[in-house]
Amino acid sequence: MTREELFENIKKKKSFLCIGLDTDLKKIPKHLHKSSDPIFEFNKQIIDATHDLCVAYKPNVAFYESLGSVGWEALEKTADYLKKFKDIFTIADAKRGDIGNTSSMYAQAFFGLMDFDSITVAPYMGEDSVTPFLEYEGKWAILLALTSNKGANDFQTEHELYKTVLKKSQQWGNADNMMYVVGATRAEMLADVRKIVPDHFLLVPGVGAQGGSLPEVAKYGMNKQCGLLVNSSRNIIYASDKEDFAQKAREEAMKMQKEMSSLL
Amino acid sequence: MTREELFENIKKKKSFLCIGLDTDLKKIPKHLHKSSDPIFEFNKQIIDATHDLCVAYKPNVAFYESLGSVGWEALEKTADYLKKFKDIFTIADAKRGDIGNTSSMYAQAFFGLMDFDSITVAPYMGEDSVTPFLEYEGKWAILLALTSNKGANDFQTEHELYKTVLKKSQQWGNADNMMYVVGATRAEMLADVRKIVPDHFLLVPGVGAQGGSLPEVAKYGMNKQCGLLVNSSRNIIYASDKEDFAQKAREEAMKMQKEMSSLL
Repeated sequence: MTREELFENIKKKKSFLCIGLDTDLKKIPKHLHKSSDPIFEFNKQIIDATHDLCVAYKPNVAFYESLGSVGWEALEKTADYLKKFKDIFTIADAKRGDIGNTSSMYAQAFFGLMDFDSITVAPYMGEDSVTPFLEYEGKWAILLALTSNKGANDFQTEHELYKTVLKKSQQWGNADNMMYVVGATRAEMLADVRKIVPDHFLLVPGVGAQGGSLPEVAKYGMNKQCGLLVNSSRNIIYASDKEDFAQKAREEAMKMQKEMSSLL
Repeated sequence: MTREELFENIKKKKSFLCIGLDTDLKKIPKHLHKSSDPIFEFNKQIIDATHDLCVAYKPNVAFYESLGSVGWEALEKTADYLKKFKDIFTIADAKRGDIGNTSSMYAQAFFGLMDFDSITVAPYMGEDSVTPFLEYEGKWAILLALTSNKGANDFQTEHELYKTVLKKSQQWGNADNMMYVVGATRAEMLADVRKIVPDHFLLVPGVGAQGGSLPEVAKYGMNKQCGLLVNSSRNIIYASDKEDFAQKAREEAMKMQKEMSSLL
């Protein structure tokens, strides 16, 4: 999906919501355990109930890996199911990154095999760990810049490393194949981020459970093409643990979509 | 496996060799493609031919993921097979790292499910992205410090970030549950690394194909308990692409073991 197409979807849906599929066997409604693939069944029903309210889905790969090859199959089925929706941007939240020939293998897994539109990438190993993801036409690398967790202060803000990541990575890709993760818990720092990357889309976790504010994020982070994908996971997908979980997820997604509509 | 046990294995085998299982369907001998699981069959024969010459194996997880759930199954079978060898330390080279609850899921995948002794971890996201891996009794997190690739100069050496990683992570774990990745291509910098972490084991990639020198690594990096696991992947496992591949891999491993024996 191109940047223009993503922006068109945002305008059409009046939403820049990304729904995180952090699907956990321990948290999904009990009645789904009767299904042959409870993880995929949960995802499918969440997607069916919310896809008109969001522009992106972001499976958190760790949750699938923690179940082994069975979980990996559920991830493959989810990626495949999402391809049905032409107005949905898909993000493999995998935080990968390794030396060149190994990053190429990760790119093959998430772009070649599962056909995700994008993958989150950890930048610590530098240029050759990132560029293999940029070689796929029409695909995106979403670099960690300033994450939403407490540990972000250990290295990312030391000597403003996140700014070095933003600046240096401009030589590797551009606003049409790179995005950045910037946590909502640091909304005021979004203004600094925007000085360096005015045109790039930002993937923003941390609204809701982690305490970030949507109006603050929009105030400091929005650009001409919106430029934001704001993620919410637990608040939406676990709104209910009963048989009405998909309907309750829809209600929570709609609350966010309405707030986003007024901010656009 | 404890640090003492690892050192005992090094003394017994006169080797600090780690063999990297970067198993690639395109590179393994053609006759193995007749097998129902060529990746596992290749690994099994390599392990059978070399386990007395090395102290560790390091499957590179990207190579398995690039095959999807089938590759993940081969990784699970390889991890399971390696448990047969009580004098082998196992490393999941996965470069994982995410916010706390997500890192816990990765830990569950590699420690809970597959029972690896250790996992490589990318430190960019800081403390809460690393500590979930340290909560497993008897398991190890191997933090990226100074990697062997060209991109290491993009961020790791800027303001000597790798030293900050070495220093700050001392508050999270110790020489009995943390190791560090330090590339062999920077042997002279191993002396600086040793000033900060005199007792920790270091996982050293980059000898061989990437140009690092084993005597230089030993000169600057060895400590009282050896303190080194030197990895070699392609030089050993792809020594031949014929039916004699396992025997040729053994011959290459033996060359390294002999050199290591004289350095110990």
